[in-house]
Amino acid sequence: MSDETPLGPGREFDLVRVMMARWGDRARGIGDDATSLDLPPGEQLVVSTDTSLEDVHFRREWLSPEEIGWRATAAALSDLAAMAAKPLGVLVALTLPPAWLDELGALAEGIAAATSAAGAPIVGGDLTNGAPLALTLTVLGTTAAPLRRSGAQPGDTLWVTGQLGGPALAIAAWSEGRQPTPEARARFARPVPRIREAQWLAAAGATAGIDISDGLGGDAAHLAAASGVRITIEAEAVPRITGADVSTAQRSGEEYELLVTTRKSFDAVAFQRTFGLSLTRIGAVERGDAGVDLLIGGERVASPAGYDHYSQ
Amino acid sequence: MSDETPLGPGREFDLVRVMMARWGDRARGIGDDATSLDLPPGEQLVVSTDTSLEDVHFRREWLSPEEIGWRATAAALSDLAAMAAKPLGVLVALTLPPAWLDELGALAEGIAAATSAAGAPIVGGDLTNGAPLALTLTVLGTTAAPLRRSGAQPGDTLWVTGQLGGPALAIAAWSEGRQPTPEARARFARPVPRIREAQWLAAAGATAGIDISDGLGGDAAHLAAASGVRITIEAEAVPRITGADVSTAQRSGEEYELLVTTRKSFDAVAFQRTFGLSLTRIGAVERGDAGVDLLIGGERVASPAGYDHYSQ
Repeated sequence: MSDETPLGPGREFDLVRVMMARWGDRARGIGDDATSLDLPPGEQLVVSTDTSLEDVHFRREWLSPEEIGWRATAAALSDLAAMAAKPLGVLVALTLPPAWLDELGALAEGIAAATSAAGAPIVGGDLTNGAPLALTLTVLGTTAAPLRRSGAQPGDTLWVTGQLGGPALAIAAWSEGRQPTPEARARFARPVPRIREAQWLAAAGATAGIDISDGLGGDAAHLAAASGVRITIEAEAVPRITGADVSTAQRSGEEYELLVTTRKSFDAVAFQRTFGLSLTRIGAVERGDAGVDLLIGGERVASPAGYDHYSQ
Repeated sequence: MSDETPLGPGREFDLVRVMMARWGDRARGIGDDATSLDLPPGEQLVVSTDTSLEDVHFRREWLSPEEIGWRATAAALSDLAAMAAKPLGVLVALTLPPAWLDELGALAEGIAAATSAAGAPIVGGDLTNGAPLALTLTVLGTTAAPLRRSGAQPGDTLWVTGQLGGPALAIAAWSEGRQPTPEARARFARPVPRIREAQWLAAAGATAGIDISDGLGGDAAHLAAASGVRITIEAEAVPRITGADVSTAQRSGEEYELLVTTRKSFDAVAFQRTFGLSLTRIGAVERGDAGVDLLIGGERVASPAGYDHYSQ
């Protein structure tokens, strides 16, 4: 907190001080109306904003406050990974209900743990007394060459990081009054934005990329629409966590794994050795109407739509 | 929308399209996971985030949807003015209740009108199906030399733009079941971030600055704390809108006028001629314990605290 502006008096600032005590030197430049930052010469700024809302994106009985803070931050940082950008900083806008006041320190700790893991300082924020609990994280990053959704070309191959299905299994378990397996629960509660993995993939020749937030089928459709291509996914090739079937892996959202295309092939062994994470070829990019086909048992079927918050 | 990435299918994207139709070429780069931006060479990035929440910052019966969008955006942009930064772009995170679906276009129009007036494109956003209505605006700006809260020195003079008291009068009227005067209502519903005014003041020798969001007394205390100085305000010198008394002008928040210090003096006539807005000397910066004294009728009294969302 070396370059921090002293805060004025008042209860609201006392709460900011609760967060600052947890953040320590992981926060920079807090206390002025805005924060100023320098960019590496020759790099572009990359920005994204993402809201996590109680009873929409998570339930209090599912997660600890620390996990809620981590998850909201990781979800936002994942948009930097999707662009293969290096994190520059994070802004935290928090709507905090009175019933959550005692959890503020733990929420702040989870936010800071996720930013630290990604190498991003916390550079600003806003605190509102209201309900329900809402965390809007704005992430700033830099890159000389952003990876876009629109760069996929016919002839490219399609790849995914990690194993899918965990968040859908966890939500299904909680919804049925069961506890999810530790593996499925961790995939929902502690997702990891694939920041460094994305930079590796971009350097290794990725042509387009997106993070899986709406489900593999839905995000593949976004990528297909942006690139104006037909994407074919070999459903049985999609890596799944224990207990997830082919359909679950297709529609499970908020995975924050990466879906990328490349002209030829990636060295999946080198990727696995570097990150301890699988990288799997799951399909191909073809000429045709923008959209997605699933191949299941050799049969071509229409892709299920991704999760749509407004279609429920 | 020339450089826009095509959006995928789904109801959520239909709603994004409702906003895009209103925004036209006032939005740029929407549709990817994040947006990339170039900074002017030699300038720093300035960032801030600000939430406006239904029934906390505004009530539906007070404002039109277009005014709600304008006001939330202007409030966030005002933090760029406080730093004397030029706007680079705005990100819009919107939590939209089902009961507000039909108002989305008008909300979007208000957001775009405020960004246009400030010369800032809309460069990203997020849409969540939830309640209550919440708008978290993140603003990005650039400057070669940010104006900070911490630069005031003993011997400086203290200045304020515009006339204060309007928002407090408007809220008081609504709370008592009356309609506010058009002048007071406009100050609440259509605040103007003093973007260009701040750049003029910085160029003319401002040493420190803050925008008045917590009330003159509260924000002067923030400035005093950050600079480690004693600030004296001549209460009767503070310009007020019709109907506002000295006390109302002290505590009225969400004014989004500027409070600045300077070594010598500003040319208030030239400022008024340029912007059609008053610039008034209202006090002085002195050595002493960090804090604020009010002079009322020659008597030195303690300053009333600013509005504190968590002390109610």
